[in-house]
Amino acid sequence: MTAVATERVFDGVGLVQRQYFTWTEPLTLESGKMLGPVTLAYETYGQLNAERSNAILLLHALSGDAHAAGFYAPAERKPGWWDMMVGPGRPFDTDRYYIICSNVIGGCMGSTGPSSRDPRTGRPYATRFPVITIGDMVRAQARLIDALGIDQLMAVAGGSMGGFQALEWMTSNPERVRSAILIATAARSGTQTIAWNSIARRAIMSDPRWRNGDYYGYESPVDGLALARMLGHVTYLSEPALEQKFGRRLQHNDDLAFSLEREFAVESYLDYQGEAFNQRFDANSYLYITKAMDYWDLPGRYGNLDVAFNRVTGSTLLISFSSDWLYPTAESQAIADALTRRGRFVEHVDLPGIAGHDAFLLDAEAQEPIINAFLDDVGC
Amino acid sequence: MTAVATERVFDGVGLVQRQYFTWTEPLTLESGKMLGPVTLAYETYGQLNAERSNAILLLHALSGDAHAAGFYAPAERKPGWWDMMVGPGRPFDTDRYYIICSNVIGGCMGSTGPSSRDPRTGRPYATRFPVITIGDMVRAQARLIDALGIDQLMAVAGGSMGGFQALEWMTSNPERVRSAILIATAARSGTQTIAWNSIARRAIMSDPRWRNGDYYGYESPVDGLALARMLGHVTYLSEPALEQKFGRRLQHNDDLAFSLEREFAVESYLDYQGEAFNQRFDANSYLYITKAMDYWDLPGRYGNLDVAFNRVTGSTLLISFSSDWLYPTAESQAIADALTRRGRFVEHVDLPGIAGHDAFLLDAEAQEPIINAFLDDVGC
Repeated sequence: MTAVATERVFDGVGLVQRQYFTWTEPLTLESGKMLGPVTLAYETYGQLNAERSNAILLLHALSGDAHAAGFYAPAERKPGWWDMMVGPGRPFDTDRYYIICSNVIGGCMGSTGPSSRDPRTGRPYATRFPVITIGDMVRAQARLIDALGIDQLMAVAGGSMGGFQALEWMTSNPERVRSAILIATAARSGTQTIAWNSIARRAIMSDPRWRNGDYYGYESPVDGLALARMLGHVTYLSEPALEQKFGRRLQHNDDLAFSLEREFAVESYLDYQGEAFNQRFDANSYLYITKAMDYWDLPGRYGNLDVAFNRVTGSTLLISFSSDWLYPTAESQAIADALTRRGRFVEHVDLPGIAGHDAFLLDAEAQEPIINAFLDDVGC
Repeated sequence: MTAVATERVFDGVGLVQRQYFTWTEPLTLESGKMLGPVTLAYETYGQLNAERSNAILLLHALSGDAHAAGFYAPAERKPGWWDMMVGPGRPFDTDRYYIICSNVIGGCMGSTGPSSRDPRTGRPYATRFPVITIGDMVRAQARLIDALGIDQLMAVAGGSMGGFQALEWMTSNPERVRSAILIATAARSGTQTIAWNSIARRAIMSDPRWRNGDYYGYESPVDGLALARMLGHVTYLSEPALEQKFGRRLQHNDDLAFSLEREFAVESYLDYQGEAFNQRFDANSYLYITKAMDYWDLPGRYGNLDVAFNRVTGSTLLISFSSDWLYPTAESQAIADALTRRGRFVEHVDLPGIAGHDAFLLDAEAQEPIINAFLDDVGC
């Protein structure tokens, strides 16, 4: 008998469990509104040391969640979103560090968000959920870090919107952060980012299934969310990557079909991404999280980046990707330059390749030695 | 009495009229299907000379039409789409040249397209309209040029999809084209272009008002077409242009509204573009024309660009814009290189600036001397 198809040799963190931290004291949001009770879904990998000095907080991007690494069940097909980076011997080395990742507020993977039950009504918040900011996400995370008994994080690390949160940690809680790893990110959302996000939101809100947000219990706005995701995906990939991966290849036929239906391979790919996203993501969360991204403007809040980094004491690693046109290298360079002007330790590595913005989730090999060396220097 | 508010000093071609050319002999399309009768809406400016040697055919882009220049009525707010380029003393000098522009088949501004009456049913074609190609558009234009008694065009000229048609003229009818002016264009639609167009089509087809194309007589798919147009607009502008024009400026308030509604100036701009487009464009035409663009692949059809240009004899002017990321400079350079390898006369000018792809419709001043000198050399 060889009925062991579900057995898996785990070389990463293996089986993991989602945990929940709930508090009742309301969180005062940047808008002035109060949110409570608040639950954060989170996962941890590795062990906190006796000095409580080896904790690293991973921060997820727009469509991420608390499940950064490992598998919930042996039969699962895919591990957490940054599994290649987390585990024994990996950059976020679970033999040495205590790794924490939580789902942002506004999210839909266990943390309080628009699909959560509003205690005032007993029904889902939907659009009664307050508009949140990157700062609000970090304020909630800080409560979790308090609850875990950690005064100072060895590092905060994230790509894309995860980098926004890491920058927020550095600037709002400088005394609690010994170092930051900022990947494929920016200190503000530029006009083009706002434009893409606005179109994505309009796609969702135009879907009649959206019902002004009150679609829970009904069919969800699958067309709108699929469109939003498809649009996002094009911005995550570089043009050369799209050419290399799909070119003008047809999905099923050798010849053009002379039909309005989709027929190029890239169309099938985008379509699949849209459908798959509908299986796992809540459309209202997409509205709230993209809005939080649009509001992200560190230089705007402080006057300029130099002032924003006034209180920063820790060291910073920046990784950008030359083919990333969503958060281009220049955005990382602007952060590096401002930190350098403040006399802070900063290392900026721009990686070649064609993967585009998505490289931060794909290109472990190139990022590994850079992060390893940086974390060795930070020490725990 | 001073009720002369509608008087206008015309320094271009002044008042113009849309004309129609209809033929009944069906057009055999690239798909093998037949289309007939066919009408082309067209306009002409200037006079055909006795030798019939001064005709220039202008070719419009995705959202253009036959109305390249002038005004239909003195009170009109906006002239034709390339008015700045057409008129006495302008690059397409109506004192010297006979300028022709027609709406493409598949279009919705007077030429036969999906909103036209299908003679077999008496109802609009809608999605019974056959899928057309850039080659089909040019085959229809050739009939108009025949009817106007013109054997050889002094020049074909167009930007974006207009450049596709100009390339098609050069390669399919080399003996009928003495020169070509190709602006902000490419010899094929790349993967990213197909991706954007596919998302735009899906936005239209997802709108329940689309009714599988049979929305004539009902409300049209305004949300879908607006989304398609908004998405397109972001690709027509460069990121620096968006930053300069809108930045993170709010449309109405000094402070963030903490609401899901649009509030940044760039959001209002895109929204306006979407609404305005709904006033003038047919959603089914958008489906058909973007599909024709996706099919555009000159090197694919001939094996490579060098073979495609085998029979070309005329001279070619290429203008690209360094800030155009939809049809980047490299696409024009590839065309110039292939023509040079074939020993053809070719001039390629890459213009600086930040306007992006839209520059071909905006930046007359920079294009003017280049086109003037080129057409002087071609002669009539």
